[in-house]
Amino acid sequence: MEIDILKDFSFTPVEKSKIDTFDFENVQFGAKFTDHMLVCEYKNNAWQQAEIKPYAPIQLDPSARVFHYGQAIFEGMKAYKDVNDEIWLFRPEENFNRFNKSAVRLAMPEIDETIFLDGLKALINIEKEWVRKGLGNSLYIRPFMIATESGVIASPSNEFLFCILLSPAKSYYAGKIKVQIAEYFSRAANGGIGAAKAAGNYSAQFYPTKLAQEAGFNQIIWTDSTHTKLEESGTMNVFFRINDTIYTAPTSDRILDGVTRKSLIDLAKKEGYNIEVRPVLVDEIVEAAENGTLKEIFGAGTAAVINQIEAFSYKDKMYELPNMDNEGSYALDLKDKLTKIQNKLADDSFGWTVKI
Amino acid sequence: MEIDILKDFSFTPVEKSKIDTFDFENVQFGAKFTDHMLVCEYKNNAWQQAEIKPYAPIQLDPSARVFHYGQAIFEGMKAYKDVNDEIWLFRPEENFNRFNKSAVRLAMPEIDETIFLDGLKALINIEKEWVRKGLGNSLYIRPFMIATESGVIASPSNEFLFCILLSPAKSYYAGKIKVQIAEYFSRAANGGIGAAKAAGNYSAQFYPTKLAQEAGFNQIIWTDSTHTKLEESGTMNVFFRINDTIYTAPTSDRILDGVTRKSLIDLAKKEGYNIEVRPVLVDEIVEAAENGTLKEIFGAGTAAVINQIEAFSYKDKMYELPNMDNEGSYALDLKDKLTKIQNKLADDSFGWTVKI
Ligand SMILES: Cc1ncc(COP(=O)(O)O)c(C=O)c1O
Ligand SMILES: Cc1ncc(COP(=O)(O)O)c(C=O)c1O
Repeated sequence: MEIDILKDFSFTPVEKSKIDTFDFENVQFGAKFTDHMLVCEYKNNAWQQAEIKPYAPIQLDPSARVFHYGQAIFEGMKAYKDVNDEIWLFRPEENFNRFNKSAVRLAMPEIDETIFLDGLKALINIEKEWVRKGLGNSLYIRPFMIATESGVIASPSNEFLFCILLSPAKSYYAGKIKVQIAEYFSRAANGGIGAAKAAGNYSAQFYPTKLAQEAGFNQIIWTDSTHTKLEESGTMNVFFRINDTIYTAPTSDRILDGVTRKSLIDLAKKEGYNIEVRPVLVDEIVEAAENGTLKEIFGAGTAAVINQIEAFSYKDKMYELPNMDNEGSYALDLKDKLTKIQNKLADDSFGWTVKI
Repeated sequence: MEIDILKDFSFTPVEKSKIDTFDFENVQFGAKFTDHMLVCEYKNNAWQQAEIKPYAPIQLDPSARVFHYGQAIFEGMKAYKDVNDEIWLFRPEENFNRFNKSAVRLAMPEIDETIFLDGLKALINIEKEWVRKGLGNSLYIRPFMIATESGVIASPSNEFLFCILLSPAKSYYAGKIKVQIAEYFSRAANGGIGAAKAAGNYSAQFYPTKLAQEAGFNQIIWTDSTHTKLEESGTMNVFFRINDTIYTAPTSDRILDGVTRKSLIDLAKKEGYNIEVRPVLVDEIVEAAENGTLKEIFGAGTAAVINQIEAFSYKDKMYELPNMDNEGSYALDLKDKLTKIQNKLADDSFGWTVKI
């Protein structure tokens, strides 16, 4: 795709790139950013000219709505560089559409496709050098929007800032994780904002997750309002394998409609796995763990693609899962296949990858 | 109370006050602020020196946690000037304690009483001129805390900024309001953050409230997860009078424990009203409206003290309340009595008011 940067976006380059000071071997997820960012203001009922400019602090009035009422949404996606140095996005329209759904739910203006998608491509074009090749390397992309209007009035802002940040990422094998099934705390309400990638959903999880971590777990698997159905976990949707069938909860207004989740469902079907989207009950998973038919649980999300779960606790009892790594693990197979599509190391028959 | 500002707080005065440009007759709630603000940083596991300095923008990294994960809490309280030019706070320890409860739920550090309460007193002392006398005039106080650490990592921040802003307020008679009973949307989950004054709770209400406003209502009365119990509304707790008894919902992890609510409960008891704290069912209110025993509904919160509700809708049917203004309205009587205590125009037998 050719983008005439000077036409659609105003571009101010950094004086000196900081790429030489960046350690691509030791990368902490989400901690450091590339030289430039894209910013675009919304005011007078319209998106203004988008700018690509040096990464720099944002200055806001202390009464800005985002500080007081959490009117803020974001997205998380990745870019990959193939062996020919071409850069690819994975299903970017999915993130664009989800961003605008989040915007509606948070009473924020929808963003134009030109700003979000073409802007992103223009920005990555400028930051090409920051995307490294090789399986495990990627560029994490963080589009977000915040309410900037001043005034401590609990009503929607009329001014917003849209911004895209880029952060080089590397996947390390972090090991399998232990999770706790939520019995008291909740992440989202029926008719609430759980399905939106709204800022407030994440800080709401911090305290319960901290308690779970203090008790020796990595994450919580959130349940519905009756604490009987398994929903999602941290920043991942969740899959359960009982015998030879994979189950995952349907999306709802409590659950984020994950791009990895929907891609895995399609991929699993294509690969001939039995996969069913239907409510997953805590009781059936406990029972399956007890009678040995529960083979695997895994989380799915952009950051880690797939995270295997080795144990869960429920009502103070710990349930260990068998190690299927050398016995045809579905999680490992699906992770391998999806990662190869994303990295252009396997044929993309779904047409999911988009060249920049 | 004597505060040695130079000892406990660093103080940088403005060069020139903007008080002469402030129109005290035409005040829009929460829109404009006084000359100074209090700020205090949290880092290296400790609150740093608090500073009182000119009101000015806050500068943050674009990856600051508050923008992405909504880790932010606030309080709302008021100061009043009496006929002798003394300034009074209303139950400030309640707001201080609630702030720290919110902090715990959002995995943020609790603030020291010296910074919150003594800091507030020192700040108001400096801004004395901004507090006007006379019933209806007050100074709105907005303490808040935001997560400032950079990095798009969905985990609690290690750095925070606590801040207090002051905004002169005036109460106008805004009229009675019309509300809609929530049948689909929710404000808070069981085991969620509804009881905290967390930023994310407010933006979550914006879209449903916008829809309600487009349908001709001012606010929504939120219900529990089964949409059968009436809980609270916007930034107010809610009271229902059936015949001669006032009912209000008990607080829970979904409902904010309002200072106005608890003060009204005590005041109503003292004044000899029948008041019961117990779950209030949608069905009983609809029935009472239909058989004419529903006399009043009112919201209670710091901003407006009491807001009378003249009509509500449920399942697309509108229920009008009788006009009790000249027939011994409990809402008007309680509002008058509470406002007079706050403004030091009536004896404060509860010891609720605290002199600065
Ligand atoms: C709450 C939540 N669930 C699930 C996911 C997974 O979604 P995706 O696969 O689109 O990254 C995310 C995002 O990472 C999330 O924030
Ligand atoms: C959600 C909510 N409910 C009720 C109230 C009323 O609380 P208070 O009386 O302490 O102002 C507030 C705060 O204003 C609020 O934000």
